[in-house]
Amino acid sequence: MRPFKYLISFDEAFSIALNAVKPIERTETVSMENSNNRVLAQEVVAKIDVPSYDRAAMDGYSVIASDTFGAGQFSAKKLNIIGEIHAGEVPENSMSSGECMQIATGAMIPKGADAVVMIEDTEREGDSVNIFKPVYPKANSSDRGSDILKGTAILTEGEIVNPSKVGVLASLGLKEVEVYARPKVAIIPTGDEVAEIGNELRKGQVYNSNSYTLTCVASENGAEPKRMGIVEDTPEAIETAIEGVLSSDLIVLSGGSSVGERDVLVDVVKKLGRVLFHGVQVKPGKPILMGEIDGKLILGTPGYPTACLIDGYVFMAPIIRKLARLPEKEKKKVSATLSRRVVSTLGRHQLLTVKLENGEAHPVFKESGAITSMAEADGYVELAANLDLAEKGEEVEVILF
Amino acid sequence: MRPFKYLISFDEAFSIALNAVKPIERTETVSMENSNNRVLAQEVVAKIDVPSYDRAAMDGYSVIASDTFGAGQFSAKKLNIIGEIHAGEVPENSMSSGECMQIATGAMIPKGADAVVMIEDTEREGDSVNIFKPVYPKANSSDRGSDILKGTAILTEGEIVNPSKVGVLASLGLKEVEVYARPKVAIIPTGDEVAEIGNELRKGQVYNSNSYTLTCVASENGAEPKRMGIVEDTPEAIETAIEGVLSSDLIVLSGGSSVGERDVLVDVVKKLGRVLFHGVQVKPGKPILMGEIDGKLILGTPGYPTACLIDGYVFMAPIIRKLARLPEKEKKKVSATLSRRVVSTLGRHQLLTVKLENGEAHPVFKESGAITSMAEADGYVELAANLDLAEKGEEVEVILF
Repeated sequence: MRPFKYLISFDEAFSIALNAVKPIERTETVSMENSNNRVLAQEVVAKIDVPSYDRAAMDGYSVIASDTFGAGQFSAKKLNIIGEIHAGEVPENSMSSGECMQIATGAMIPKGADAVVMIEDTEREGDSVNIFKPVYPKANSSDRGSDILKGTAILTEGEIVNPSKVGVLASLGLKEVEVYARPKVAIIPTGDEVAEIGNELRKGQVYNSNSYTLTCVASENGAEPKRMGIVEDTPEAIETAIEGVLSSDLIVLSGGSSVGERDVLVDVVKKLGRVLFHGVQVKPGKPILMGEIDGKLILGTPGYPTACLIDGYVFMAPIIRKLARLPEKEKKKVSATLSRRVVSTLGRHQLLTVKLENGEAHPVFKESGAITSMAEADGYVELAANLDLAEKGEEVEVILF
Repeated sequence: MRPFKYLISFDEAFSIALNAVKPIERTETVSMENSNNRVLAQEVVAKIDVPSYDRAAMDGYSVIASDTFGAGQFSAKKLNIIGEIHAGEVPENSMSSGECMQIATGAMIPKGADAVVMIEDTEREGDSVNIFKPVYPKANSSDRGSDILKGTAILTEGEIVNPSKVGVLASLGLKEVEVYARPKVAIIPTGDEVAEIGNELRKGQVYNSNSYTLTCVASENGAEPKRMGIVEDTPEAIETAIEGVLSSDLIVLSGGSSVGERDVLVDVVKKLGRVLFHGVQVKPGKPILMGEIDGKLILGTPGYPTACLIDGYVFMAPIIRKLARLPEKEKKKVSATLSRRVVSTLGRHQLLTVKLENGEAHPVFKESGAITSMAEADGYVELAANLDLAEKGEEVEVILF
């Protein structure tokens, strides 16, 4: 057994981790309707005008604006109705002074007309209509291209697609769009004590949970995770497992990054590539390892469920987001008062999981091995490495999961 | 054409809409690994202890705590190493006073031992080890069931599954879990001017974009959306389309809720069921209709892309979340100063879309018909119905999309 020697600070580890990440260059074509939340790998230049014709923005009558000048509540202007235009139709006639056409919102404005009078400002009388309010040219109508002008670069490379941008793509009639590929993340659980769900739990075994929790976090942060089978804790088995997934952008192992006798990951990484750091002043999650093999990143997280998942949130997720070209996740914070004194672990940046109740933050951290240390928590309080203790009643900032 | 008569206030419409929603009762079984973000329809009671054995929480030596009492930096206690226990193994021997066994984190504590000394506090000498620090009973070890005790109701009905709760399910060896079904939302685009993507755009037509944007928003809010084909603007076609999807929990139509001549939705809803409201003092999105047919909710949104999508965010999404038993979405807000004077529409609660730049909120709303009114926006400013105008430089709260 080799105890850790020098641990690096949390901030240093985080900065090494992020600096090692090269945003993904691979792109893929996805259908417009599946492009939500993806990162555009192309500029989108409008090949058509939207709308592609001058259209009515209101239900009413298409008119020649100057015909309405002088209209008022007690001095209506009377116009002859020479037809009606429904949405989707092409008006057959053009209009001359003294004429108008009934028009629906979204319908094409006929030749000759230059404005629309709202239905509310009119009163029909057989084949003519009284106009009670003047309109200026272009009133209640939208010019061809007023939404998107043909030739405009309307979406840029690197933008994240949201529902309204899906709407832009659809409005332009685009069936597909080029986006950056999701980072492939291989998740490998290791450990001789780990049993797969569905098998009977033998004495001394625990069920595999880390590969499931890490898969969820990876997926939520824009990755395409691949959950691998449980790997034995031997150098050969781990080496084989890693070599089998080197086509991934990130390889994450759980278990095997601690300093136990069977802690073989660090040797395997040294053999196949290089170690970027091993052991960080953070609690829980200290025995984290980061390395690089053939230009692919590798992350070794502890086998203990809470330590593993915390490392998943604070290291793996930001790494994946940078790979995926997604912005850092905004931390949602709330203030609360600590419900009891907490003795911090001097020299380790502690992420103390807490449950929120009536404005109080109740520490729920049992131990790194307990998944309930996380499952019962609403978030965590960061206790700086040089903090000795935090008193009951002290105001703390809780970062929500 | 029938103009709107009485519009109801935004708050009243919202409260009618939400009160009409009955949270979904249907449940379904999903695999544990696909349960993230789903709403539990069952209580989860632990059928096993986690861990299922007393285990070492640290790498080191399993000892009888009293053997270490009095140990110190200059007064080591020497213990005989009688074996080693790796994770996943069942110790063959039990221990007596004066003995210890090397033990790995997560491994089973042998009979007779009641504590673990950390490797850092020891020094090995052949078959024995010097202990430099005393431990109390249970030190550095976790009792069977200390994480989850068999029989405990560890997750409750109505909880939303997150990665750590997936970890709880996995730790208990559960392959599947019962969750509430996702609300089925049928999305029907209507309008004779609407062309499907992939078809050539004829004169006077616009591409179908609303059913795509609404599908994204529905999906992001926990629904299982089904995008239907474009339906003609006739009472018969709309009636047939609605009757075809009455197995849905919510039916959303786009277009056809305005007051144009071809505005037939309101008549169809009156015929098949009842109208809850039609026309709301909101801008954009005024011509929204909500109704009920056979106990199923129906929402008619305007055909104009921005009006439709705003109604999707402010009405459809909250309705879906309540159906899905998800909490209201927390509004992310930032403060900004208005970049120019805005004349509000008195009598309508205005949702003014803005782009944020250097702490300034730039209005980007062109018109309800322009999808770019949304696509260029980071969020919106709410202007109360009784607000006349907001001045340049005024501080406003921007609600982010």
